[in-house]
Amino acid sequence: MNTFDAIEQRRAVKHYDPAHQLSDDEINQLMSRVVLSPTSFNIQNWRFVIVKDPDLRKRIRAVSWDQAQVTDAGLLVILCANKNAWKDSARYWQTAPEDVRNFLVSAIEQYYDGKDQIQHDEAMRSCGIAAQTLMLAAKAMGYDSCPMVGFDFEQVGKLINLPDDHVITMFVVIGKAVKPANPRGGQLPLSEVIVHDTF
Amino acid sequence: MNTFDAIEQRRAVKHYDPAHQLSDDEINQLMSRVVLSPTSFNIQNWRFVIVKDPDLRKRIRAVSWDQAQVTDAGLLVILCANKNAWKDSARYWQTAPEDVRNFLVSAIEQYYDGKDQIQHDEAMRSCGIAAQTLMLAAKAMGYDSCPMVGFDFEQVGKLINLPDDHVITMFVVIGKAVKPANPRGGQLPLSEVIVHDTF
Repeated sequence: MNTFDAIEQRRAVKHYDPAHQLSDDEINQLMSRVVLSPTSFNIQNWRFVIVKDPDLRKRIRAVSWDQAQVTDAGLLVILCANKNAWKDSARYWQTAPEDVRNFLVSAIEQYYDGKDQIQHDEAMRSCGIAAQTLMLAAKAMGYDSCPMVGFDFEQVGKLINLPDDHVITMFVVIGKAVKPANPRGGQLPLSEVIVHDTF
Repeated sequence: MNTFDAIEQRRAVKHYDPAHQLSDDEINQLMSRVVLSPTSFNIQNWRFVIVKDPDLRKRIRAVSWDQAQVTDAGLLVILCANKNAWKDSARYWQTAPEDVRNFLVSAIEQYYDGKDQIQHDEAMRSCGIAAQTLMLAAKAMGYDSCPMVGFDFEQVGKLINLPDDHVITMFVVIGKAVKPANPRGGQLPLSEVIVHDTF
């Protein structure tokens, strides 16, 4: 599918065929694309929790405002990030010349070490970028998706045994739509969201 | 361009033809796609500062680790967000039935009111998603891009007169590449970033 069509046709779909599952091969195709998303300094801080267990799905739905797409969509991906991914960073630059690698390892340490808010921002930023790759790749494979923040982050963390140094950033559900999204709700004009040079 | 090709061929390119500018029509094509990116509750909290003024570009470069792409790329987009975009939210749902609109306005208020960290997270998340739309749309238009966090956020905020209730989330530069990106630095295997059901 053409990139512009994928961007235009991606909508937050809420109603899915609960009988339709994505195959392992499809999941692999999808996730192989998602990990081509950029991260700052290539730290690849995202961690994608793919929830298939129907019982776990039900328990997650119960703390997600009972939204049907949590159980009904073929795939539930909980986008998380490891706030400590910046550590042990030589492996992100193993193909680079040694001097470049050493420079980057040092720059990464300076950028993140002891800076909790920046590690946290990087979680949100990386996962936001990856979420759009996931949704557009899904669209190009004939699926629909829905990004979600309407859930109890703490309770979901407990249900998936989230490690202390990880954060949950959002959900994306993916599946076979049974009902299209409603028309767009009210788009701001470009003039309201674009600023030229300075505010 | 095919969506998968755009995802695979998008790389962080650092070297641009400084003589090549994007036309206003191209910028409009690009940004019209970017604003189709999803935001939580459709609050469209992103604000895109397009910096064309060459002198301002130079001053921004000076607080961006002197990275050449800040001045040399055809387009510098500073992705910002309005942390108060959740206010006055009926306009985001003007096409929805009145009861749905009222429900959403109340849900939005409950989700964001008085919750500074959540407003901040929404800035990072929305801009992350929009940044990938921007980079993939640029690729599909024959351009390259580079996402950036290597700059002094506070100094750049001063240079663009960032309002107090806005935050800068990242830069994306877009332009005509004169040198391709280096090979990918060291991709983690899928098995390291995908988690099944629980950690």
